[in-house]
Amino acid sequence: MTFAEASRVVPATDGTWDGEIAPGWDILGNADGGYLLAIAARAASMAVGRPDPVSVTAHFLSPGHPGPVSVATTVFKEGRRLATAGATMSAGGKPVLALLGSFGELGGEVGLERLEAGPPDLPPPAECVPVEPTETFPTPFVGRVELRLHPEMGDLTNVPGAPRVSGWFRLRDEEPIDTIALLVAVDAFPPTVFFANLPLAWVPTLELTTHVRARPAPGWLACAFTTRFITGGFLEEDGEVWDSTGRLVAQSRQLALLPRG
Amino acid sequence: MTFAEASRVVPATDGTWDGEIAPGWDILGNADGGYLLAIAARAASMAVGRPDPVSVTAHFLSPGHPGPVSVATTVFKEGRRLATAGATMSAGGKPVLALLGSFGELGGEVGLERLEAGPPDLPPPAECVPVEPTETFPTPFVGRVELRLHPEMGDLTNVPGAPRVSGWFRLRDEEPIDTIALLVAVDAFPPTVFFANLPLAWVPTLELTTHVRARPAPGWLACAFTTRFITGGFLEEDGEVWDSTGRLVAQSRQLALLPRG
Repeated sequence: MTFAEASRVVPATDGTWDGEIAPGWDILGNADGGYLLAIAARAASMAVGRPDPVSVTAHFLSPGHPGPVSVATTVFKEGRRLATAGATMSAGGKPVLALLGSFGELGGEVGLERLEAGPPDLPPPAECVPVEPTETFPTPFVGRVELRLHPEMGDLTNVPGAPRVSGWFRLRDEEPIDTIALLVAVDAFPPTVFFANLPLAWVPTLELTTHVRARPAPGWLACAFTTRFITGGFLEEDGEVWDSTGRLVAQSRQLALLPRG
Repeated sequence: MTFAEASRVVPATDGTWDGEIAPGWDILGNADGGYLLAIAARAASMAVGRPDPVSVTAHFLSPGHPGPVSVATTVFKEGRRLATAGATMSAGGKPVLALLGSFGELGGEVGLERLEAGPPDLPPPAECVPVEPTETFPTPFVGRVELRLHPEMGDLTNVPGAPRVSGWFRLRDEEPIDTIALLVAVDAFPPTVFFANLPLAWVPTLELTTHVRARPAPGWLACAFTTRFITGGFLEEDGEVWDSTGRLVAQSRQLALLPRG
């Protein structure tokens, strides 16, 4: 099953869309957050008739498991350039996530460009370390996407000591990556804190915001994630996604919860 | 009128709250975005009975002007540690902003702390440049808050050439700054692009996300804002707010629109 199929929604009634959490997109039994978000974003995008999620925020309310979901959408504004909508995904009446986003049609514009940094410094995908599904860890989700970690991040057991991770992302079988699939890319890598020699195991995502700047060109995406501040019981993870032409296609920031001490 | 008074909401019916955009909080005739957000966040915070906006995102739909507003809230989840709600502010039936946020009670926890940077390098407030209201620019909003810019950012006419700004923030008359007021601090400074010698005048904010890590100690807040990527018709502005004890109290990121070329 392709990502396009696994994230498909169909109109039900009254701004509500039906979708299905497909099996195999889970990490330790819970559906990947970016994948859940993609389903909800597709519903919101269709509700406003604009393909590209320019800025989308999701708050994760409960874990998602394979099976049917319902996405209720509310359109707040339909402007010339952008339209804004909310969406709530629920499964069996239980809320899974809440989304707020603005959608548009990217491309065609040039305008002012000024970038203070370029793509992360990564060896070619063939020289990076593939993350392959095993029976234990990594998890089924990595059977759905292709991840190649920077060799420094190695096999997840020889970690460099800083809360950073970088690598390549693409969908399996070179399925084209639309702007909704970028919402998966920004949440696909192991958490930065896995690489930092910290007394932390799992850090659940409370909230994830993604800004999409452009539709990606075909090919691998170069991705980099950094955490600068672990404090107050929370940590942020900032992401950048660059396409094969060296163009910034998405920025992301998520807030994750530290386990209570 | 204090900020607490100007951002007050009172329960109306059925999850709806009444507030008022007070005069004098505008920039070039439109109410400051952070101030509008504070009104909506107060309603959402009261709807879930949790004082602190841990992660709040707003999409700005139309300008706000002095007068009554109504905030309709929806509670998505009430958890042990956090509660998540949506809110839409409207004026005369027209949507002004949509909000999605998770609220909690900050403080009391220590836990793991690891910070890769400290507060911005700022001379003491007395050695920084006050932004004072004039009849033209700066605007009435700066009569409501106190801003002191880093001397390098001078008087807004002698700009350093990079899209960055830093300085001190507090409310007038040393009114205590609660975590809702932090939502004003992250949107109070002139845009970073004012300081960058770019062919840009005004860049409207599409979306603003704020993470609040801690309740601020009394005193000035040290604030710094940076833009790294102007591309695709958009730019981000990343903010950090540190309290007088040197503690990171908030992080923010907004997405602003470039005028169409």
